[in-house]
Amino acid sequence: MAGRRTVRYGRVSGFADRLIAEISAKGNPCVVGLDPRIDLMPEFVTVGADGPRQAIASFHDRIIRAVAPHVPAVKLQSAFYEQYGLDGIGAFVDTIRMAQEAGLVVIVDAKRNDIASTAEAYANAFLGTARALGRDLPAFNVDCVTVSPFLGRDSLTPFVEVAAANGKGLFVLVKTSNPGSADIQDLEVNGTGTISMRLARLVDDLGTDLIGESGYSSIGAVVGATFPEEASTLRRLMPRSIILVPGYGSQGAAAEDAAANFNDDGLGAVVNASRSITYELDSTAIAARDYEDLVLARLTDMVTSMKAAVAERSSERT
Amino acid sequence: MAGRRTVRYGRVSGFADRLIAEISAKGNPCVVGLDPRIDLMPEFVTVGADGPRQAIASFHDRIIRAVAPHVPAVKLQSAFYEQYGLDGIGAFVDTIRMAQEAGLVVIVDAKRNDIASTAEAYANAFLGTARALGRDLPAFNVDCVTVSPFLGRDSLTPFVEVAAANGKGLFVLVKTSNPGSADIQDLEVNGTGTISMRLARLVDDLGTDLIGESGYSSIGAVVGATFPEEASTLRRLMPRSIILVPGYGSQGAAAEDAAANFNDDGLGAVVNASRSITYELDSTAIAARDYEDLVLARLTDMVTSMKAAVAERSSERT
Repeated sequence: MAGRRTVRYGRVSGFADRLIAEISAKGNPCVVGLDPRIDLMPEFVTVGADGPRQAIASFHDRIIRAVAPHVPAVKLQSAFYEQYGLDGIGAFVDTIRMAQEAGLVVIVDAKRNDIASTAEAYANAFLGTARALGRDLPAFNVDCVTVSPFLGRDSLTPFVEVAAANGKGLFVLVKTSNPGSADIQDLEVNGTGTISMRLARLVDDLGTDLIGESGYSSIGAVVGATFPEEASTLRRLMPRSIILVPGYGSQGAAAEDAAANFNDDGLGAVVNASRSITYELDSTAIAARDYEDLVLARLTDMVTSMKAAVAERSSERT
Repeated sequence: MAGRRTVRYGRVSGFADRLIAEISAKGNPCVVGLDPRIDLMPEFVTVGADGPRQAIASFHDRIIRAVAPHVPAVKLQSAFYEQYGLDGIGAFVDTIRMAQEAGLVVIVDAKRNDIASTAEAYANAFLGTARALGRDLPAFNVDCVTVSPFLGRDSLTPFVEVAAANGKGLFVLVKTSNPGSADIQDLEVNGTGTISMRLARLVDDLGTDLIGESGYSSIGAVVGATFPEEASTLRRLMPRSIILVPGYGSQGAAAEDAAANFNDDGLGAVVNASRSITYELDSTAIAARDYEDLVLARLTDMVTSMKAAVAERSSERT
């Protein structure tokens, strides 16, 4: 996976190189999900909070400080911010800023999709700038965003172009972690394999011009940890794509399952856990210090398990 | 299309009945898109505006006042708000409030999709409430939202449940208006027709329990005006669904093309136009009064054309 091609446009050292460098620096591929669910937060955050924005910012400030030294990236699920309306989007902006200040790669899981100028507007919202009142204004300005391929290749092209121009990245949905992913994604088409396999080939092709020095492309894919057999097939179809792997922990997948998404070099994927790291408390009355210890203990378990599973897989295949 | 079944849960007279009543009251099925693109707005709105939120609110206030007496609904494309960040979401909230105060049905075109509790969070964001700090808070609280079916049936169920519980509606993407919609949506699967046809059957099934007195279901579909042949087939597969038809005007489809989405009763679809009504100005120096006249003249053309095309189609088939 040496860098045989260079990035055609955009900044030197785009998203893929930055993420791979952070994975190497932290020594693991684990991502912590920051998905605000105020009704599940500890009381030390919620009691006395003057609104959703303050509660979320206070909660994430604590989590980010705890995990930033240990992981390369955080993932923000936009749905959980949007459910709190304008106040929630305020917390989204706050959380992005705090994560960036802590040096973390910021992934937004928004699964956006649309066509033509609308797709470009979404891409600009997360990865670029919008022209307004004589200025080019950045909106959320994160490192990468998840996108849905349902509307076809021409719906992804504007996202690829905005990512390229700004040194940012994408994760395209290829195989999601839910049982219902079978309804469309597993359908077989005319002897050419499943829809997911077609999408993996599309991701590989879209990413060709955005391969960095690391050998990886800034156009990645989402493949759920819950389907390790499919993951091995999809991995081979897009060898230069970084795979964002959801489904670890609360959704039932183990480190061994998630490891099917890695390349033999021990790289090529990041594994996200959200609820199983930050929620699932026996009691919301937990003290702040105990909560921080709990988050770190859970994260340490995940890091240890993932490192062992990836090493095991690499040794099996070489 | 008489109401043979009743709504199982939710408020009496849900989304479908309300939209059909507004279509009857206004006498046409036209929807005006409110998609903020500040760089294309007239100078009377942008000059002196103190930021994106103010410019957008001022522009949409004028458009809503002009069109509200004439159309049943407006459609807000979330991408164009998100591109302006937190300020854009503020304008999104402002626009929703103004449209609701003007008595319009508010459709949000967000094409959201996710799984399990995340899908529920999106549904709550647009159609329901979120529990936080001891209260149930509505977020954007509109009449209906567009959703993507790429993640499968279990990803749509939380949206259907939230819509049902709150008397709201959905439009599920079935066949989009872009050329690339062929890449996935037109694929043929094992002799059972295209993916779009499968999705039309799924929409029909999901909507069975949400059919109102009008005979129409609150679970609708999106079918682009640019593919009238496919539209006729899809229309027959989901006879009780209201179809949201994009692609009229700027995307090249004519009234006759859009009419393929209607039932023989002259109902069953709404047709959206955005740019071709509110932008595409010869000069942004247009005066406020002239701009209002222009918008109304364009809307009148669209209404006249759509009414004629739907009447023509109904007479051909009966």
